Amino acid sequence: MANITKKVSWSSRGDDSGLTGEGTPLLNGSEIPKPSRQLSRSGSVFRIGRFSTVDLEDDITSEEDPIRGRPKEIPHNEKLLSLKYESLDYDNIENQLFLEEERRMSPMGFRCLEISRWVICGLIGILTGLIACFIDIMVEKLAGYKYQVIKENIEKFTEVGGLSISLILWAVLNCAFVLVGGIMVAFFEPIAAGSGIPQIKCYLNGVKIPRVVRLKTLVVKVIGVICSVAGGLAVGKEGPMIHSGGVVAAGVSQGRSTSLKRDFKMFEYFRRDTEKRDFVSAGAAAGVSAAFGAPVGGVLFSLEEGASFWNQMLTWRIFFASMISTFTLNFFLSIYHGKPGDLSNPGLINFGRFESDSVAYYYYEIPLFMCMGALGGLLGALFNSLNYWLTIFRIRYVHRPCLQVMEALLVAAVTAAVSFTMIYFSNDCQPLGPERNEEYSLQLFCADGEYNSMATAFFNTPERSVRSLFHYQPGSYNPMTLGLFTLTYFFLACWTYGLAVSAGVFIPSLLIGAAWGRLCGILLASFTPTSPIWADPGKYALIGAAAQLGGIVRMTLSLTVIMVEATGNVTYGLPIMLVLMIAKIVGDYFQEGLYDIHIKLQSVPFLHWEAPATSHWLTAREVMSSPVTCFNRIEKVGTIVDVLSNTSTNHNGFPVVVQVLDSDEPAKLCGLILRSQLIVLLKHKVFVELARSRLSQRKLQLKDFRDAYPRFPPIQSIHVSQDERECMMDLTEFMNPTPYTVPQDTSLPRVFKLFRALGLRHLVVADDVNRVIGLVTRKDLARYHLGKHGLEELQLAQT
Amino acid sequence: MANITKKVSWSSRGDDSGLTGEGTPLLNGSEIPKPSRQLSRSGSVFRIGRFSTVDLEDDITSEEDPIRGRPKEIPHNEKLLSLKYESLDYDNIENQLFLEEERRMSPMGFRCLEISRWVICGLIGILTGLIACFIDIMVEKLAGYKYQVIKENIEKFTEVGGLSISLILWAVLNCAFVLVGGIMVAFFEPIAAGSGIPQIKCYLNGVKIPRVVRLKTLVVKVIGVICSVAGGLAVGKEGPMIHSGGVVAAGVSQGRSTSLKRDFKMFEYFRRDTEKRDFVSAGAAAGVSAAFGAPVGGVLFSLEEGASFWNQMLTWRIFFASMISTFTLNFFLSIYHGKPGDLSNPGLINFGRFESDSVAYYYYEIPLFMCMGALGGLLGALFNSLNYWLTIFRIRYVHRPCLQVMEALLVAAVTAAVSFTMIYFSNDCQPLGPERNEEYSLQLFCADGEYNSMATAFFNTPERSVRSLFHYQPGSYNPMTLGLFTLTYFFLACWTYGLAVSAGVFIPSLLIGAAWGRLCGILLASFTPTSPIWADPGKYALIGAAAQLGGIVRMTLSLTVIMVEATGNVTYGLPIMLVLMIAKIVGDYFQEGLYDIHIKLQSVPFLHWEAPATSHWLTAREVMSSPVTCFNRIEKVGTIVDVLSNTSTNHNGFPVVVQVLDSDEPAKLCGLILRSQLIVLLKHKVFVELARSRLSQRKLQLKDFRDAYPRFPPIQSIHVSQDERECMMDLTEFMNPTPYTVPQDTSLPRVFKLFRALGLRHLVVADDVNRVIGLVTRKDLARYHLGKHGLEELQLAQT
Repeated sequence: MANITKKVSWSSRGDDSGLTGEGTPLLNGSEIPKPSRQLSRSGSVFRIGRFSTVDLEDDITSEEDPIRGRPKEIPHNEKLLSLKYESLDYDNIENQLFLEEERRMSPMGFRCLEISRWVICGLIGILTGLIACFIDIMVEKLAGYKYQVIKENIEKFTEVGGLSISLILWAVLNCAFVLVGGIMVAFFEPIAAGSGIPQIKCYLNGVKIPRVVRLKTLVVKVIGVICSVAGGLAVGKEGPMIHSGGVVAAGVSQGRSTSLKRDFKMFEYFRRDTEKRDFVSAGAAAGVSAAFGAPVGGVLFSLEEGASFWNQMLTWRIFFASMISTFTLNFFLSIYHGKPGDLSNPGLINFGRFESDSVAYYYYEIPLFMCMGALGGLLGALFNSLNYWLTIFRIRYVHRPCLQVMEALLVAAVTAAVSFTMIYFSNDCQPLGPERNEEYSLQLFCADGEYNSMATAFFNTPERSVRSLFHYQPGSYNPMTLGLFTLTYFFLACWTYGLAVSAGVFIPSLLIGAAWGRLCGILLASFTPTSPIWADPGKYALIGAAAQLGGIVRMTLSLTVIMVEATGNVTYGLPIMLVLMIAKIVGDYFQEGLYDIHIKLQSVPFLHWEAPATSHWLTAREVMSSPVTCFNRIEKVGTIVDVLSNTSTNHNGFPVVVQVLDSDEPAKLCGLILRSQLIVLLKHKVFVELARSRLSQRKLQLKDFRDAYPRFPPIQSIHVSQDERECMMDLTEFMNPTPYTVPQDTSLPRVFKLFRALGLRHLVVADDVNRVIGLVTRKDLARYHLGKHGLEELQLAQT
Repeated sequence: MANITKKVSWSSRGDDSGLTGEGTPLLNGSEIPKPSRQLSRSGSVFRIGRFSTVDLEDDITSEEDPIRGRPKEIPHNEKLLSLKYESLDYDNIENQLFLEEERRMSPMGFRCLEISRWVICGLIGILTGLIACFIDIMVEKLAGYKYQVIKENIEKFTEVGGLSISLILWAVLNCAFVLVGGIMVAFFEPIAAGSGIPQIKCYLNGVKIPRVVRLKTLVVKVIGVICSVAGGLAVGKEGPMIHSGGVVAAGVSQGRSTSLKRDFKMFEYFRRDTEKRDFVSAGAAAGVSAAFGAPVGGVLFSLEEGASFWNQMLTWRIFFASMISTFTLNFFLSIYHGKPGDLSNPGLINFGRFESDSVAYYYYEIPLFMCMGALGGLLGALFNSLNYWLTIFRIRYVHRPCLQVMEALLVAAVTAAVSFTMIYFSNDCQPLGPERNEEYSLQLFCADGEYNSMATAFFNTPERSVRSLFHYQPGSYNPMTLGLFTLTYFFLACWTYGLAVSAGVFIPSLLIGAAWGRLCGILLASFTPTSPIWADPGKYALIGAAAQLGGIVRMTLSLTVIMVEATGNVTYGLPIMLVLMIAKIVGDYFQEGLYDIHIKLQSVPFLHWEAPATSHWLTAREVMSSPVTCFNRIEKVGTIVDVLSNTSTNHNGFPVVVQVLDSDEPAKLCGLILRSQLIVLLKHKVFVELARSRLSQRKLQLKDFRDAYPRFPPIQSIHVSQDERECMMDLTEFMNPTPYTVPQDTSLPRVFKLFRALGLRHLVVADDVNRVIGLVTRKDLARYHLGKHGLEELQLAQT
């Protein structure tokens, strides 16, 4: 037992591997290295035989190759992968403790677990619905109050002159709201900024984004989104609902709050990544469902963004949570609106019903719709490119909280100013009809009985503006009004997304699209004044909204269903789908989707659905990280402490090997253990003193691990005395004895498929006698992506 | 190279393993064997060291344990698993040939492949839509003609007396149609019987059902379903559409027809199980989409039934195929109906639109809906139990084609007689309103300007009857009429399902449910005559239809979406979902779903989503089949021929092992090769004569394997001379060099997860020095299921 830690010293990557380079495209399709060359190289480098004991200092090697020659100032671009993100462990750790627990459990026990899962999903749905309800009512109250005050003020000053005072009032009110929201986000919980969809996407993909599912994040998010919508920014409250649903799920499913230090001693079985991630899927779905009144869309969103292995029971539970969430929201909103029992009110955003008879479409309109899809793709790509540059600018120069708050205030003021100017100079007066009773109609300089049409678009919450564009009868808007509105709102929304406020991009996108879509409809109608078909611009507004949203976020399946459910009419399913497809294809040609851009700019190691198509010539040998730090099955405590304390490497998983004493056979893989498990073992001093028998080792329960989950203490907080360092630790019953392994010749797509389908965190590469020769982690796979010039490899960095 | 075939002789299953027993529950939750005991047993039985050469006769051992003492007459029950079904290979065979091809391919090549996939999905959608259109028009024409003739006849004889002649005419016409359909199915293609959904479910699950996706099956199915619907049986044409879509997909994606012996030299890349199965998912979705006008429901159906690893691009393609299918159907039907361009006609079954305003529901109705769901579950379980006994009776006594045709004729005649009697004795006369113009209203003994209400239910295609029940205004049906109709149709539908005709169970279920649902509505309204809420029984008909269908087929997510899309109204999403859930829970308590019953009665090794919950104490060692027939990497042709010719075992996958010459080291796993590959190698005589160098081996291309796919010739058709038997065959570049392996201590759920998530066919169990000790196949996993008394093990049989 002299060899304390093993270093398997074969490495497939030379210094020329691009990992240390400047991040330029290293590999491309035309330069395919011969696999035979690499095969022969491996033969000569691989050291067979007994491993030598090495110094600890050398010994603790990185899971990833060491980053040498990395420039001091890392340019923030999408050619980097950050090492600071950890993976979730979707693979169950089937160690002896776990198996014993499972074996002890009766069929009735499993049934109870299943019932608890359903109960939790019901709770998630109810709570998410309540939060949506709260946000909706608060926004309505606050925005209503604000618009009322401003309207009265404007009406007062319209006649006497001096509307600049109204402008200042408007700007000040906006800024006040945004100030509160901005301070909350920038100073208390920066992760609550934005829509939260990129973060939830990453979480469901299996990346642990720090603090993303904490209670504090939820509180800041909810208050933040109320402030930013009431503050008149070009934002929606739908994206944040998805994030809120995820946080609710992560909280409820654990049966305790670590932040509030309350443990309800419930649902302890679910305190691991596998179960928690399943519940977060349900929460995200419930969020979508509450936001758009789209339960099926919610399920599809969760699956599209998160699922790897599709499980029927899980999907049903997700669906259940979604349904309950919509139901709860509708139930309470119906009471709030004084029509209790009317459950047909769909979600936070209500597109209003498109009755199929009044706005049917004909097949010769489909090419027109497709052109609009292409336009949406183009505009979306433009939006995303502008936002990309803006985000890089923000990362470089606007990273201090006070600067972020100031930028948010600036945007709020500018939004008010631009809106006011547009309304002021607009001369689009329309007669006041009976359907306008719920709006804040501004008369301004219009004749009595008329209202300013520009004001319906600007002087309103964005949701109401969208509904007006969809449903107001033909002639309610001037083409000029719509054109100007599209132009200004496009830039406002683009500037707003990425601010340090909680805000979604769904509604602004829909609003922009609805505006230019309606414009298209009006123009078409003016070209063919005799045909009654083009008469209703509302359907073009719908198609435009879909095209613009698709061009920006690039979802297709779930977005189609969400739009269909939000409009309450399946007739438009086909055109919406076609439009979203075209928008995606056109948009993808120029620029990625908005969420993907933000994920890349955060350098998150995001795993896509499949390995890049041209990566078949890469094998596990080239991809894996090596050498690997391994532990013996019975390992010295001091060694473990030293390895864990090494901050430069910060490994999270360690293969466990076993070697027959005094034999020439190489050490064989016999398990895998995680840093978190070792931390718990060290904390509970599960040591075997050499003098005593093995039986003296303290018996740990699964409960000890569950109690420590998910905030395992850092190794620095655990004191291990010099005597204890000399003790041994028996890892046998804690390690996962059957980790998945692949041979070193496995192609990258095959490795990728195994890794992705099973949601792994560590995949051991073993040779033909079961020796550990490498470890494949998320970063090793996420590094490769298909760029413009073939396969590219991203740099790894500690940012 | 003396050891030709290796026999790894350790076996974990003794003779008492239940495989040879009578199929009684062997394992249950309360008798958990200690894993430690098994661990220790393995140590003593496992022979380490060099393998001995054994006689070929002994050598060819079964992938499964030999079936000894099996009773001659196997009772057809669900406690059996048939060995005659093979698995599909969803795992790519990444051998050298494949990898070389992939590596040669440029990024543009991959893009072209992706585009072809989309094109194929488009074609699948178009063709499926056309077939649906053809079926719909044919049924309408034929049934219209039939009902017209009978109606005239009845009207003629109503006054003069002698309606028995009308009855005979009706029965004869029905029988004539059913005779054609029955003969087609029973004599030409028995697999085309029934709805085809169980078969497609199995195919998507990864089981190769013989002849299920052939052109002949499609032709018989289409003609059969037209005949059975026109023949007045209690059947629907929707299930068969799903099967038809699957066949179309399997045909189109291969770019050739093996039946017609035409090869268009297209889409050769897709000639393997992995790709084909993906396309069949798309085809099934397109079928659902065409049948119900439910593109999203189609996607969800495919995913619910088929998906293991969810892939975003695949899902989009499936969605695309679904959308195109609905579009094609609507386009051509709109032309047929003389309203070209009106695309809002949803699918084969048109539920008619539920306008939300007229039939809103209130939250206090939800408990009522839930009770109806429970009732649906009960009735569904009754239906399934009756059909189960009937099916067993049929398997035992009605297995000759002429008997099957006669039974079908009997059912047709009885259906006509019962319908006629019911109509004859009904005295439910209703005034003829303007909305009845498209129906075949029978006046019979009613006054002028009135029609017989029972006849709207019986004297009609089932689709139209469903629509009438949903939408006719309150008071159109007597409670008595509905009650009698429910009762008779329930038994008729139950008797009909499983006949040797192509027929679906969706529409009969909906019809039964709609009838008793409407009855519930009427009864509720009569209890509370003052309240206007219960006024419309149409919504109760909808809920009843959902409950009954859910109780019979037990789908939830996809069925909810299908119902929502077919009604064109999302408002009813929540109640429909709740009702389907309740129906499933209640129904599952008594009996399985109808499709699952039929799958079990066919003894198909169907893999569910997860391993049974209480199976954690089983490990790969207990589950796997052993000993395993392995080949050497360079193997004697004679040995291969002998192994493949052994009809008693009929293996499909063989681990390939390599042994260092004259060394004591055990033979190590180095690959996996399939029977089909070996057959192609033998056919092309890819032999190395010992005298010559290795280079003389004929170079095979992937094309040779693709050309032989999917109907590989039997080994008996390949002649190998005595000289050739002495040659050697080098398997290196054909075998899959990196098969997935698991250690022998892996728990069953873990093995199951790997197997299911990656769609494997063979999973090698290796020990810690990489020796093959067992092989896990589909049957080894499908054997275990959770019965009433805990974990049960099914018998394997050759039936």
